[in-house]
Amino acid sequence: MSETPPETVEARKVKGFRDILPHQVLARRRMISTFRAVFERYGFVPLDTPAVEYLDALLGLGEEGTKKLFRMQSPEGDEIALRYDLTVPLARFVSESPELPRPLRRYQVAPVWRADKPDPGRYREFIQFDIDTVGASSPHADAEILAAMDEALRELGVSYRIRFSSRKILDSLMRWAGVPAGKAAGTLRILDKLDKQGLDAVCLELGPGRTDASGDRIPGLGLGAEPVEAITRFLDLPREIQPSPVVAVPRGALLDSVEKLFSGVEGAAEGIGELRLMDGWLAASGIDESRVEVDLSIARGLDYYTGPVFEAILTEAPELGAIFGGGRYDGLVERFLGVKVPATGASIGVDRLLAGMERLGLVAGEGWSTASVLVTVMDRERMADYIALTKELREDGIAAEIYLGDAKSLKKQFAYADRVGIPVVVIAGSNEFAAGTVSIKDLTEGKKREGEAATREEWVGKRFGQQTVPRAGMAKVVRSLLERP
Amino acid sequence: MSETPPETVEARKVKGFRDILPHQVLARRRMISTFRAVFERYGFVPLDTPAVEYLDALLGLGEEGTKKLFRMQSPEGDEIALRYDLTVPLARFVSESPELPRPLRRYQVAPVWRADKPDPGRYREFIQFDIDTVGASSPHADAEILAAMDEALRELGVSYRIRFSSRKILDSLMRWAGVPAGKAAGTLRILDKLDKQGLDAVCLELGPGRTDASGDRIPGLGLGAEPVEAITRFLDLPREIQPSPVVAVPRGALLDSVEKLFSGVEGAAEGIGELRLMDGWLAASGIDESRVEVDLSIARGLDYYTGPVFEAILTEAPELGAIFGGGRYDGLVERFLGVKVPATGASIGVDRLLAGMERLGLVAGEGWSTASVLVTVMDRERMADYIALTKELREDGIAAEIYLGDAKSLKKQFAYADRVGIPVVVIAGSNEFAAGTVSIKDLTEGKKREGEAATREEWVGKRFGQQTVPRAGMAKVVRSLLERP
Repeated sequence: MSETPPETVEARKVKGFRDILPHQVLARRRMISTFRAVFERYGFVPLDTPAVEYLDALLGLGEEGTKKLFRMQSPEGDEIALRYDLTVPLARFVSESPELPRPLRRYQVAPVWRADKPDPGRYREFIQFDIDTVGASSPHADAEILAAMDEALRELGVSYRIRFSSRKILDSLMRWAGVPAGKAAGTLRILDKLDKQGLDAVCLELGPGRTDASGDRIPGLGLGAEPVEAITRFLDLPREIQPSPVVAVPRGALLDSVEKLFSGVEGAAEGIGELRLMDGWLAASGIDESRVEVDLSIARGLDYYTGPVFEAILTEAPELGAIFGGGRYDGLVERFLGVKVPATGASIGVDRLLAGMERLGLVAGEGWSTASVLVTVMDRERMADYIALTKELREDGIAAEIYLGDAKSLKKQFAYADRVGIPVVVIAGSNEFAAGTVSIKDLTEGKKREGEAATREEWVGKRFGQQTVPRAGMAKVVRSLLERP
Repeated sequence: MSETPPETVEARKVKGFRDILPHQVLARRRMISTFRAVFERYGFVPLDTPAVEYLDALLGLGEEGTKKLFRMQSPEGDEIALRYDLTVPLARFVSESPELPRPLRRYQVAPVWRADKPDPGRYREFIQFDIDTVGASSPHADAEILAAMDEALRELGVSYRIRFSSRKILDSLMRWAGVPAGKAAGTLRILDKLDKQGLDAVCLELGPGRTDASGDRIPGLGLGAEPVEAITRFLDLPREIQPSPVVAVPRGALLDSVEKLFSGVEGAAEGIGELRLMDGWLAASGIDESRVEVDLSIARGLDYYTGPVFEAILTEAPELGAIFGGGRYDGLVERFLGVKVPATGASIGVDRLLAGMERLGLVAGEGWSTASVLVTVMDRERMADYIALTKELREDGIAAEIYLGDAKSLKKQFAYADRVGIPVVVIAGSNEFAAGTVSIKDLTEGKKREGEAATREEWVGKRFGQQTVPRAGMAKVVRSLLERP
């Protein structure tokens, strides 16, 4: 590269951004198609909103949110920014369209942008798949979101656990445990770590603080012994019902015990009642706690949510964190409209889920062609014949490409097929055309058995993984090779 | 809205941007799926690149391009901007990945952003579907792009005309006609208007200028009579072969006459030879000039292209302009890499094509549900039964939604179904549940025949478009209603 003329530009991606390679795009598309098919069976309609919104529409998501926007100016000089999520654009859309039918079930699959510090596995642009129901105040709408998510993840073929709770119950916990108002948010942030750090670490962080494995001091929130003990008792409720941590706790039984514990606490009955309605809906949908459980410890972005909250993890890759998260946010549309419009929904982190599936070996490896067959070009004078062969394959439903590169040797053309991941090649020269036949070579089989064939003659002599068939039977033979396990 | 509290934000889209409504997203998706299926049969692989690139990578597209970027700063303080097209990101990707197989056929479907002055039908964000072949220098690669485009547009079911030419032939025209070097670009810009304004207007604009229909003076380029006459002779070649403007001119015959006309002109033979190779490929693919024709007058962004250029229009909506355009651009990768990498490709204006299809009545009307059936909720105590009904329909492959709104009256629930575009509703109350039946109402048929039924009793009395069937037969009856023409 030292020889490049001075006027060249350095080819590099913007920091924190990445290219998505063909096999990843294909895996992502399969995932999105699966989700879409499920959600459309439920009546959800797709909506697409612009990548940018006015800054004033995006702000007000809490200090953290405002810092992470990619801001720019519109040609008119207005402050605009790339969208940070798909929920605020939905609220803007709903507010702008008073004539919309309600309830409205909508989904959106689109990139969002966050000017975070990039980390391995953490990018500044990623795809979210959101489903939301706007204009339905009943917790049934929340339950339906979970039922649809459950069906979607099942169809995807991953192992998962969906959990839900209610912000109202956590608010009651703060009152019941005597957590001072100024420390409620901090308490919830610490509770959110329960999954990763366990109960002991959480209790220490709520109280005096702790020293972590690497010897670093983590300061405590400074709650007294009484609130910490009360929180511990609350968090222990599931274990009282079902001591085994691997068996899910029945939703109804858990709600019974928290109802007893919080008897008389302000707001508790309302939150519990909502979760009972969700439980009933899920049960009627045939979904038990082994798939969707009540987990009263989940908190999830509490500035935003006003009722039920939910999330899911991959059972086999819990370290990835939530692959979807959501909840009810009855206040968001109000910011625009000044009118409360009930809304609930969840956001699937498509790229995070894809990373999980790659980690679990559920995504096919790299490939650089969507064709299953390469029609090689042995004799450039007969290009019309190769085009016709390729067309015949395609018309039989077999994706086929014709070799368009500069290499004349078949060996190099085979190497190209191998490089792009095409398993079968078709070869024809004057002999084959005269005889009305084609030769078909199975590169996978051929590679297993042949040595290095330097010339066509040598290769023809060996004929490993290769057969000559009547041209009319070409597609059938190719298909049988492709369908071989 | 005058009563909204002061802290509300105005809900509005950024100027020049728009929301894409559900029926439009669905139509667009169908279009994209059609194209994708065709291009994947040819071996093209999907690639996804970031929405933003470094500014220095995006610049150098000519002055016009640089002015229209949405610029911003990365968190590191680097100058970045939203991508303007999908070609420069591809060149960046190829330059960054020297180990890529070649030829590489890739496609990308993604939004691009241009800070243009917005006009009706012209937006600052729109979706492009690009296919490109990188690393193949033969005009066969250009021909394959056209063959794939032809197949894609045919599968879409629109009437179109694909046209191709070569920049080299236009360069030869400038020499042959004696157009001064300083006026070549201007000449080509005027030639590009031939389609819309006709030969007479073009000749006047090349020469002394003209006065348009509204009386405005359009200044001329000031070419002398000789170059203008030469250009006219060149543009007249097709008519000499085929006087009827509605019959396509045979590609070979047109190339023969331009070869004769430009005999001995520098560069002409090379350009004509390339188009002959393309003609041969298309002929071997069974594509004649009624689908893909040589049109020597098309110019297309000449700063960019180095060889064949092509475009297509909708025969029934030519006023939309090109629905795709492209050509060979052997110099673009060089800007990054300092090494010439041959490349050719075309870009479909997905949103423009969709606008054309809407104009031609090829896109279904507005709808706000993907469900075909609404399961109404007559008795909220029996929600579990309605959930079960909905589930049965979905398991039979029928998209169904359960009514989640606040309305208790069936009439209002029917109105909701009508509003969102659901044609069939299922109704069940204690009678139906006891008898093991459901009532199914065809809203389209019902609306045609019934007057205003104010109550369920009244509606039941009329029973227009309604039938009660055994529950086990529900899906079958619903399907027959949905499949009715």
